[in-house]
Amino acid sequence: MYALVERLYPLCRSITGDGVRATLEIVGEYVPLRVHEVPTGTRVLDWTVPQEWNIRDAYIADSGGNRVVDFAASSLHVLGYSLPVSATMPLDELRAHLHTLPDHPAWVPYRTSYYKPEWGFCLAQETLDALPDGEYEVCVDSTLTDGHLTYAEHVVPGQVADEVIVSCHVCHPSLANDNLAGIAVATYLARALAEQTPYYTYRFIFAPGTIGAITWLARNAERVDRVKHGLVLACAGDPGRLTYKQSRRGDAEIDRVLRYVLAASERPHHVTEFTPYGYDERQFCSPGFDLGVGSLSRTPYAGYPEYHTSADNLDFVSAEAMADTLAVCREAFAVLDRDRRYINLSPYGEPQLGRRGLYDSLGGRSDAKQAQMAMLWVLNLSDGEHGLLDIAERSRLPFDTVAAAAEALHGAGLIKA
Amino acid sequence: MYALVERLYPLCRSITGDGVRATLEIVGEYVPLRVHEVPTGTRVLDWTVPQEWNIRDAYIADSGGNRVVDFAASSLHVLGYSLPVSATMPLDELRAHLHTLPDHPAWVPYRTSYYKPEWGFCLAQETLDALPDGEYEVCVDSTLTDGHLTYAEHVVPGQVADEVIVSCHVCHPSLANDNLAGIAVATYLARALAEQTPYYTYRFIFAPGTIGAITWLARNAERVDRVKHGLVLACAGDPGRLTYKQSRRGDAEIDRVLRYVLAASERPHHVTEFTPYGYDERQFCSPGFDLGVGSLSRTPYAGYPEYHTSADNLDFVSAEAMADTLAVCREAFAVLDRDRRYINLSPYGEPQLGRRGLYDSLGGRSDAKQAQMAMLWVLNLSDGEHGLLDIAERSRLPFDTVAAAAEALHGAGLIKA
Amino acid sequence: MYALVERLYPLCRSITGDGVRATLEIVGEYVPLRVHEVPTGTRVLDWTVPQEWNIRDAYIADSGGNRVVDFAASSLHVLGYSLPVSATMPLDELRAHLHTLPDHPAWVPYRTSYYKPEWGFCLAQETLDALPDGEYEVCVDSTLTDGHLTYAEHVVPGQVADEVIVSCHVCHPSLANDNLAGIAVATYLARALAEQTPYYTYRFIFAPGTIGAITWLARNAERVDRVKHGLVLACAGDPGRLTYKQSRRGDAEIDRVLRYVLAASERPHHVTEFTPYGYDERQFCSPGFDLGVGSLSRTPYAGYPEYHTSADNLDFVSAEAMADTLAVCREAFAVLDRDRRYINLSPYGEPQLGRRGLYDSLGGRSDAKQAQMAMLWVLNLSDGEHGLLDIAERSRLPFDTVAAAAEALHGAGLIKA
Repeated sequence: MYALVERLYPLCRSITGDGVRATLEIVGEYVPLRVHEVPTGTRVLDWTVPQEWNIRDAYIADSGGNRVVDFAASSLHVLGYSLPVSATMPLDELRAHLHTLPDHPAWVPYRTSYYKPEWGFCLAQETLDALPDGEYEVCVDSTLTDGHLTYAEHVVPGQVADEVIVSCHVCHPSLANDNLAGIAVATYLARALAEQTPYYTYRFIFAPGTIGAITWLARNAERVDRVKHGLVLACAGDPGRLTYKQSRRGDAEIDRVLRYVLAASERPHHVTEFTPYGYDERQFCSPGFDLGVGSLSRTPYAGYPEYHTSADNLDFVSAEAMADTLAVCREAFAVLDRDRRYINLSPYGEPQLGRRGLYDSLGGRSDAKQAQMAMLWVLNLSDGEHGLLDIAERSRLPFDTVAAAAEALHGAGLIKA
Repeated sequence: MYALVERLYPLCRSITGDGVRATLEIVGEYVPLRVHEVPTGTRVLDWTVPQEWNIRDAYIADSGGNRVVDFAASSLHVLGYSLPVSATMPLDELRAHLHTLPDHPAWVPYRTSYYKPEWGFCLAQETLDALPDGEYEVCVDSTLTDGHLTYAEHVVPGQVADEVIVSCHVCHPSLANDNLAGIAVATYLARALAEQTPYYTYRFIFAPGTIGAITWLARNAERVDRVKHGLVLACAGDPGRLTYKQSRRGDAEIDRVLRYVLAASERPHHVTEFTPYGYDERQFCSPGFDLGVGSLSRTPYAGYPEYHTSADNLDFVSAEAMADTLAVCREAFAVLDRDRRYINLSPYGEPQLGRRGLYDSLGGRSDAKQAQMAMLWVLNLSDGEHGLLDIAERSRLPFDTVAAAAEALHGAGLIKA
Repeated sequence: MYALVERLYPLCRSITGDGVRATLEIVGEYVPLRVHEVPTGTRVLDWTVPQEWNIRDAYIADSGGNRVVDFAASSLHVLGYSLPVSATMPLDELRAHLHTLPDHPAWVPYRTSYYKPEWGFCLAQETLDALPDGEYEVCVDSTLTDGHLTYAEHVVPGQVADEVIVSCHVCHPSLANDNLAGIAVATYLARALAEQTPYYTYRFIFAPGTIGAITWLARNAERVDRVKHGLVLACAGDPGRLTYKQSRRGDAEIDRVLRYVLAASERPHHVTEFTPYGYDERQFCSPGFDLGVGSLSRTPYAGYPEYHTSADNLDFVSAEAMADTLAVCREAFAVLDRDRRYINLSPYGEPQLGRRGLYDSLGGRSDAKQAQMAMLWVLNLSDGEHGLLDIAERSRLPFDTVAAAAEALHGAGLIKA
């Protein structure tokens, strides 16, 4: 995953344009993607697909022709969606178009102006401070024209048409944790799920933030009813502990699964309430959709000083952190995928398990085996109201043990799905 | 408010009679009152309006003609609803008609006998102890005859016919905290509400305890359906901390508002469960009505030694305490009056706030403004299930910020009431 | 009760056979029993009544003819349902049929093999360790033939046909706490209940564990709808604190009553969640029945080292412990039997209690009497949603006071059942 992040890091992504296409092309080498191109001007829910932005070059040069700020050094240096400009102006006039972080003078901020026509540069405060007064040449060689918004999907087919969506935003430029790490974890998660046929169909959505999720929702109105669960992956590679942000519902099955898996794994972690800010859970959890979609991060949105700065670089993320995030995703989906409500077909009294070889023949011992206890619990609670996760929680038995008991009972014809 | 309490203090009030009328006349100088007179014998729910009691004079005089207990000194000296009596009797015979507080020998208790015909006097234990044996002349110059029960209403008209009732009892004689302070706070609250047109119609009820509330309920059967919220004001001027006693429902909106406002104000306070004892919340919260009516006091019913004694006098209440009670009432009604459920008219995804000038155009910054967050919260939770108070609680944003966000969104046509 | 336990202790009980019959005959001297005999092969729910097992003698004798293990010394020495055997074999071959407790070398374990044909002996580890190698004569003089499963019922008729069942297992051999103490408490509880006509009909079930309860359920399918509450009594005589294991529902009335009574009694105690293991609550709380049946024990199932060993003997149980268990049962049923929902017939405002002699005539005092408060609470909450136990809990008044208030109000025609 780290290698993938390294490859994607230099590209200049935005909510539209060739940077997104190049990103999806690389991801497509790992998992097959279906890429969608949606024309500028398309109405999507309350929004409209904007013009497509592309950029070749941008710089500020001093009177000696030296590039003191250079897009070639970092895609962060240009304000996202900056209008083209080619001018010479004194530093004082230029200042209104410069963005810095006075509190972190060595870092370059990440700034955009998608919906208000504007041009600008981002640079370190200390770079700015070192600039002598005088005339500067400014150049943004960008285009903002009718084109397309680009997003991609990858589907791991399951046994049923009900879907789990995994979404990550692909619109941020050279920021490693936000969200190249999320893209990398999603990609490897898709590969892992494909190793067997899961129960659910898993749909991975690689789309620009906000407008991309809105576009996907607008174009998939009928599919949304099939989306039973979902997870937004973001900030998946920093050194902090894992954070699960619950869906708007708070008790959706995905919420219960993530809480269970994180607690059972004994990893240090946080579980937070839903807020209508953050990543694309904002759209999936808008009240008209109200999907059971949570968000898994390490340190969450705006929770680390490097957030949306040039310090969110390749040093800030690690292979180990991404592997840990991926492991929790896999554990969670392993539970989610098996969590079902069964019906006890012999609900009056206990069925005679011994006759079916499912119970110890020697009576009187006090050390009832866990597997046997799990069978009794599954039988007792399989009334159509309780799923296997409910049973694991109530019995305090491991989910795997409960799931195995359900399998044995299903095999013996004692329960049905 | 303190001046009003001072004026009302000397009057001898009871559940009927001229003391109530004089009280309402004075209150009427502050806010216009509609006074109701209900004839003796009128059936009101399970009760009957009793005879009207009036008193001119009452005393116990020793053999030398000296008044050792004198109604003119304090209206507390006579048992409420005392029958007329004019007799001479030895002290030992008189004792059966005397009420004292042995634990507080300097204080005169407040006692009544509304529904059992009886005569009697209340006096300090030390006064009684000082009386030599011998003959005493006793005189209660009272009348108990067919007449009326008197209560009054003041209405602050609102934008809707749904009502908030504010009730206080006006039947206690010279007791300052119980309930002249309540009367004063109610009066000034009514004046404050009239400064603008509130959303709800606010109805202030000045009525004798129990029988007055029962009479009001009996005569307003059809209006009760319009009563959405209510507050009983009692013991509003003592030095103790504020106490909110919840309605029978416990989660009525008035309960939630008072809990919220008291907590947000960071005043020391108590919130207590409903009990079917206390003041007229007993009637409003009887199971047939079960109104959302709570009770706001400082030190509650029977919670201070001065309760129902001559020590509940003008020194026991303060202008500051009443001003504090009034302030909380105003804060609470300011929340209650604006707490409404809106419907997000653009519930699928977030509406594009930027297009409507409601969102920062510069993206990437991590310090989303509170006003902007409040708009996202209102949009996210305005599904017909959540009111603005719910949203304030869940978002941990100040109610005022949430209400302002709702106003902005309403102005932009994004939500409807 | 201790004397009854002493009489029952020597008998060799199992899930069928003459030991059960002899046990029921003795219990029948205390309370009249209706004994049921269900033939081998009868289908009962998912099970089949097994063959009947009886035993006359069993021993292991050494080459000198000395009985080194002797059923006559303790009924525990033979594996329950042991097949007949008469053979001579070397110790090494015999070992596969011997059951010991290495951790408690002086104790004899209790073991059975009801459903897998097997023979065997249980003995102390130290007895086994002392046996020299060599040939041993083994003899189990048992029969396993078509016969009957035996259980008994005792009914205390009540005012209504709705039933409370009290169940205890009668299948364990010489084990005092598990479950002779339970049998003794049940027997004396039945006698106590018969002293007056209770509201509910109380049905006591003395049946072998699991198969007995299953048989009862199979034969009483139509009666089960009348079973409103129930209690399984087990391990009722050991020195530990009381433990109430809640029904599967967790909030059944029996659960609330036992929690209330145990807390109100201020006895140290435990309340535990339902688990589908333990005693016959497993069957009564299977999902098809889901009865409100909890289980009362002292130290629960497998919670003491003496459990299912020869150390669960007459020294392990005490008259005091059984008396304590019985007392709690009686307190609980005294609450359960009176806990009803009333309807306030005068729900609008408070009814005028004074007119009916139910309220103090002297007003103004602050020490409202508990009885009067209880009446106000019963009136306020008797809306069809709250029972007397709810009212006792919410008012924090003793249940007896609340029940007495309800009786007074019922007598005055103010509430109806």
